[in-house]
Amino acid sequence: MKTRRIFLQKASLSAMALTVPTLTPFSTMANSISDFTREEKTLRVAIMGLGSYGTRVAEAIQSCKRVKLVGVISGTPSKVVKWREKYGIPEKNCYNYENFDAIKDNPDIDAVYVITPNALHKDEVIRVAKAGKHAICEKPMAVNAADGQEMVDACKAAGVHLLIGYRMHFEPNTLEVIRMRKAGELGEIRFFQGLAGFTIGDPTQWRLDPALSGGGAMMDIGIYSTNGARYMVGEEPIWVTAQEVKTNPEKFKEGIDETITFQLGFPSGVIASCLSTYNMNNLDRFYLNGSKGWVEMQPSTGYGPIKGMTHKGPLNEPIVTHQTVQMDEMAAIIFDGKRPEVPVNGEEGVKDMKIIDAIFQAVKTGGKVSLNLA
Amino acid sequence: MKTRRIFLQKASLSAMALTVPTLTPFSTMANSISDFTREEKTLRVAIMGLGSYGTRVAEAIQSCKRVKLVGVISGTPSKVVKWREKYGIPEKNCYNYENFDAIKDNPDIDAVYVITPNALHKDEVIRVAKAGKHAICEKPMAVNAADGQEMVDACKAAGVHLLIGYRMHFEPNTLEVIRMRKAGELGEIRFFQGLAGFTIGDPTQWRLDPALSGGGAMMDIGIYSTNGARYMVGEEPIWVTAQEVKTNPEKFKEGIDETITFQLGFPSGVIASCLSTYNMNNLDRFYLNGSKGWVEMQPSTGYGPIKGMTHKGPLNEPIVTHQTVQMDEMAAIIFDGKRPEVPVNGEEGVKDMKIIDAIFQAVKTGGKVSLNLA
Repeated sequence: MKTRRIFLQKASLSAMALTVPTLTPFSTMANSISDFTREEKTLRVAIMGLGSYGTRVAEAIQSCKRVKLVGVISGTPSKVVKWREKYGIPEKNCYNYENFDAIKDNPDIDAVYVITPNALHKDEVIRVAKAGKHAICEKPMAVNAADGQEMVDACKAAGVHLLIGYRMHFEPNTLEVIRMRKAGELGEIRFFQGLAGFTIGDPTQWRLDPALSGGGAMMDIGIYSTNGARYMVGEEPIWVTAQEVKTNPEKFKEGIDETITFQLGFPSGVIASCLSTYNMNNLDRFYLNGSKGWVEMQPSTGYGPIKGMTHKGPLNEPIVTHQTVQMDEMAAIIFDGKRPEVPVNGEEGVKDMKIIDAIFQAVKTGGKVSLNLA
Repeated sequence: MKTRRIFLQKASLSAMALTVPTLTPFSTMANSISDFTREEKTLRVAIMGLGSYGTRVAEAIQSCKRVKLVGVISGTPSKVVKWREKYGIPEKNCYNYENFDAIKDNPDIDAVYVITPNALHKDEVIRVAKAGKHAICEKPMAVNAADGQEMVDACKAAGVHLLIGYRMHFEPNTLEVIRMRKAGELGEIRFFQGLAGFTIGDPTQWRLDPALSGGGAMMDIGIYSTNGARYMVGEEPIWVTAQEVKTNPEKFKEGIDETITFQLGFPSGVIASCLSTYNMNNLDRFYLNGSKGWVEMQPSTGYGPIKGMTHKGPLNEPIVTHQTVQMDEMAAIIFDGKRPEVPVNGEEGVKDMKIIDAIFQAVKTGGKVSLNLA
């Protein structure tokens, strides 16, 4: 049956190529292919970096319809043993950071999900691309926009997808808010507020080492507000201002931001006012104010159920495991050319990196920094 | 009985003066006097400016225990007739803007509550002071800090009180939050957020005329967040940054701010992130985040019941008419030397004006403006 469908699909493509005289964009073709293959093609993923978030993704993949965890890349052999046992991963699909370029000769792996410290993403994603595998990269995609752009270019050159782990782009309540905004139910958007932060523990972790993290709270948690401001408002910001305070310079060393407030100005006149912090509790809140209504989400980006109120009542979309939906949708993007409501490609990642670059610059200069993300 | 108490009080004062060798500060003396006279002395007030807020204050005074509305100052004779009838105000206590200096010869008026457009406050308060009457002035006290300071100086020179209409300083739920913060129930304060605004109607009103208002939303409604940030955080800010957007320059002319976001930095590292706007609905929200707890108030400064949640549960202090409590407490400040939990004197008003001056400067320069309010 599988063979027959693939045959039909190929036949239909050949027929199209013969009979349609105008150029058919690739994405359209891909969508038509998807009608045939959506249920067929499974994305076979190796996870690079077996830390706590890697573990969460691995667990979530177990519930995926079309994603399978088939490999690992890790520098810790004891972890590899555990994962092999737990997920039935064959030894030939296990790599370390020295030898993982050999993945190019492994036909059983389609994509690598890079879940390592931020500063390592660039080289790792480029190596994945050079191995001819699709790269999924946790956010922030890099430690600055220039590195992010290099990653985009490398993946393009290699003809592989680069997708960033923006799980909120597939979260049902978030998508419902975007639908409401697009349908005009909120009227003209006027204001967005994003508060994101937590009190970070262990001072020896890589998130507090600038060489590995490329920044502090802003990179790790503030990015939810840069990204959220954009998908909630539905525009790209044109300026940034930002202010930093540091109450504990021993814990939050040079290059590690503790608390930053930042503001984004949008072409329509919307302002986003955001807070990013490693020094506060209870901060996972989005607020969107429009001329006809409002939305408040809390928690707005956490792993647990996203909860929200609007002027029309509570947000009641289905509760899902974010990473499960994300991975299934990414399979559809890679194999079917599906276009998500909000992009998760490398270009989307670069936009957030440009905003974060501008935030750091605004903190330094104390002035307003212009942005051009179009 | 009254006579006897006053006699005892005088006798006790004389005895103190004779037996206590050290200087007794005036405020301490005043507090000890208050124990005898609190229920006795009624503050007899004339209201200057019979607009909608003047009307609200007049109504609230009807429920006061120790404040009586006894006079009016108005430029509209028809309003004076109505008020005279409604509140039983004798003709001899009615003035207009030309002749109200003659109030100095009226022994039946103790204080004048100035409730006129912002830009008029300075001259009016100074005239009230020169007439030897206590001045209560609606906020903002003036259109800039220099004018505010002139008012403070004039009242000091005349030996009269200058009190600013900070009604929230007497609001029970607000005071409960301040109590919680002082008692350490919130831990170290880390972040304050104040969102204040509404969609302003009639474009011909004085609030949208820079010659009368001295500014737009910031003067009118943003001041709730400058003031609220200070009493919620319990510190004085040391820097200000601010950003302005204007989507409707026809309605919001030069000198009238439509929407401003501003940030205040405090010595301990607390940041306040605030929004002031004439172009949004549903904005009357305070949020205070500490290391051990949090408080959220909505509405936070409106006339209606103030509502709030904390990490310990809802704020459930008695619901009061703000202006009734404010006026009774102001009588106690004037006659008994009572010290309110949060000051409402002219110096307090000047602090907010200094912050607003700095906000306007920060908008212009785009940079961080230092503050010294100590």
